[in-house]
Amino acid sequence: MDNNLFATRVQPEVPSRLAGLFPVMDYEDAIKFTAGAPAESLFPAHAMQQAYLDAMAAEGNHTFQYHTVDGPVELRERLAQRAMDKMQIENVTAENVMLTAGGQQGIDLVAKALLNKGDAMVVEAPTYVGALSSFDMYEPTYYEVELENDGLNTDQLEATLKQHPEIKFLYTVSDFHNPGGVTMSLEKRQKVVELANKYHFIVLEDTPYRELRYTGKSLPSIKHFDTEGRVIFLSSFSKVLMPTLRTGWLVADKAIIQQLYKLKEAADLEVPNITAQAINHFLANNSLDDHIAKLNQEYVVRMQAMIAACQKYLPEGVSATKPEGGFFTWVTVNDAINTTDLLYNEATPNQHIAYVPSKNFYAYKNHTNGMRLNFTGLTPAEIDDGMKRLGTLLTHAGQLI
Amino acid sequence: MDNNLFATRVQPEVPSRLAGLFPVMDYEDAIKFTAGAPAESLFPAHAMQQAYLDAMAAEGNHTFQYHTVDGPVELRERLAQRAMDKMQIENVTAENVMLTAGGQQGIDLVAKALLNKGDAMVVEAPTYVGALSSFDMYEPTYYEVELENDGLNTDQLEATLKQHPEIKFLYTVSDFHNPGGVTMSLEKRQKVVELANKYHFIVLEDTPYRELRYTGKSLPSIKHFDTEGRVIFLSSFSKVLMPTLRTGWLVADKAIIQQLYKLKEAADLEVPNITAQAINHFLANNSLDDHIAKLNQEYVVRMQAMIAACQKYLPEGVSATKPEGGFFTWVTVNDAINTTDLLYNEATPNQHIAYVPSKNFYAYKNHTNGMRLNFTGLTPAEIDDGMKRLGTLLTHAGQLI
Repeated sequence: MDNNLFATRVQPEVPSRLAGLFPVMDYEDAIKFTAGAPAESLFPAHAMQQAYLDAMAAEGNHTFQYHTVDGPVELRERLAQRAMDKMQIENVTAENVMLTAGGQQGIDLVAKALLNKGDAMVVEAPTYVGALSSFDMYEPTYYEVELENDGLNTDQLEATLKQHPEIKFLYTVSDFHNPGGVTMSLEKRQKVVELANKYHFIVLEDTPYRELRYTGKSLPSIKHFDTEGRVIFLSSFSKVLMPTLRTGWLVADKAIIQQLYKLKEAADLEVPNITAQAINHFLANNSLDDHIAKLNQEYVVRMQAMIAACQKYLPEGVSATKPEGGFFTWVTVNDAINTTDLLYNEATPNQHIAYVPSKNFYAYKNHTNGMRLNFTGLTPAEIDDGMKRLGTLLTHAGQLI
Repeated sequence: MDNNLFATRVQPEVPSRLAGLFPVMDYEDAIKFTAGAPAESLFPAHAMQQAYLDAMAAEGNHTFQYHTVDGPVELRERLAQRAMDKMQIENVTAENVMLTAGGQQGIDLVAKALLNKGDAMVVEAPTYVGALSSFDMYEPTYYEVELENDGLNTDQLEATLKQHPEIKFLYTVSDFHNPGGVTMSLEKRQKVVELANKYHFIVLEDTPYRELRYTGKSLPSIKHFDTEGRVIFLSSFSKVLMPTLRTGWLVADKAIIQQLYKLKEAADLEVPNITAQAINHFLANNSLDDHIAKLNQEYVVRMQAMIAACQKYLPEGVSATKPEGGFFTWVTVNDAINTTDLLYNEATPNQHIAYVPSKNFYAYKNHTNGMRLNFTGLTPAEIDDGMKRLGTLLTHAGQLI
């Protein structure tokens, strides 16, 4: 067997950013802050089962046939309405809505459409690791812009654009950042659009957590401010309904969507009709708003437990972002502490806690003093217990510097 | 709005190979030989509905959670067994089986893994248009090898490889070719493997129709002869079960599959668990062999009607391939006739029949004297009627040359 079957292709030689992301821990008292998954006890399983049956009953055998790349127009009409109502995007029709195989495919197809090898793009530092794994395939040159408590640093973004006017693409998680936990301010949203128009780049606004707001007031999407069709708004059913639907949706100019359909046809032909129709029937017969309200009622308690635990247990010199929604808090420790080493040498074996170390969330993996903490997958008691252990660990680590 | 949003990216400027493939015809007496879809009256809808319910019952809420890129091991074990039993591939385990979003994603990910811009690959002439649409994205240099009645011309393949030893990838539809209708002989299957070993390239053997054999004896897959892990065998549930499952599966060396998993994670994260488990439960509680036997019993009648109608109605100088399974017959007419023009100027408006013209199935669209005829989507009476009209049309067209 030739070990060099793929030798002339670059991308597969890129190590996976997702492999080994979540350390295995078998201790009985283990507490994992690593989750990126929604709490499955809150899934509307019964209603979704009914929605699948309704979909099959409505179309009969035709449910299971090939359909079209764009999926049911009724579902896209519902999402167009939602984009206007909840995301404050104007004049959205079914033709501006594209269904994708999860948010991940939205990211992947936009990158595929935009990026040639070596092309310049901007990502936040830190950013969503799954997006980096997708961008890597198209071998871009990454420019990183730091994430602040009110979203990416737009001054730094502008300086980067001045120096690299060839930048064609910005990827940003505007609401309840993964992994940062922060939300971009209104002013920065406007500024991003201004810069996109001035420097001629495309913005992918990725918002899987947007409707999971537990405190504070919702802001208009970046897409709301878009004047030149430069912003692609991306959402997903994975966090507000269920991940296995593998259904995301994006809102963009019709011309962009037509290009993306060509890429989707080449990638996997079409949206699975049965899934799209199940979601369509779910939305017709259930209130997604009510379901999200139920999720938020549960998640807010967990978020507040996390915020309280950060104040209570984290030692001097350690900071935590203060989320208003979403899944994550981001903790920054002393530069001298490497959170990857800490995880494997101390946190897991001694304290029986796990988090995702910062390294994974940076395009060039060169930031080692942060960690992502999930709070939606744990009870308040578990959060308190786990954060107490993390506090002990960080206090001890700080003394060793 | 800037009309040049995507200006620096090449691929989206490639026209879609799939758009407008099927002409719209609204005549009451229209007969369409264009279909690529299976006959939906034969779908096991009730059993599949039960399989979805079984999947949800077995795992409860966890059905709907994120799972893993590779999908349920039970399903991959079943497919490994099927690969050994039906495809005559040896020593297949669950680790050699990868689930994909339809056969299309299998094609796309293999191409993505192998091809850098400009890389040399071989396709059959004609070949599957959906595969070309996928390959186009990676901007390869195509070398076309003609399709004969016993599969691709291996002498021409060898000559091409001698001249272009940089060729790294061959895509072939070995059984009941789409669009050609032919099946590769045993000798040629062996020869393809010999050449792959000698000239160090990868073979993607795409076999969505393989088990839909209506007459004659099944041949071992090309993968059966593979000695160096150079052959990737690809199948799909779209034609033998239902397209909306959007589930294909490939068999390859573990090392190759590990590379493809990285690409799949970046493309859409993972297989939808609910679909994979529904297929798993379907296979556990139903005989796929019996279902396929039922399909074949119906399809054989339609194929024989097509073969008889070709003999009866096609004029001198027009040839048709004689399939033993699958969905298609390929008709070749006089070089002087352009089947695209004939379709739009004569076949559709006057005879109210439609086929897919040959141009679409060639990498460089430079063969205009063929057509693909589907026979599985029509009754024998419709086939006879439609072929009679095609005969009239071709007789008339021949007289005008």
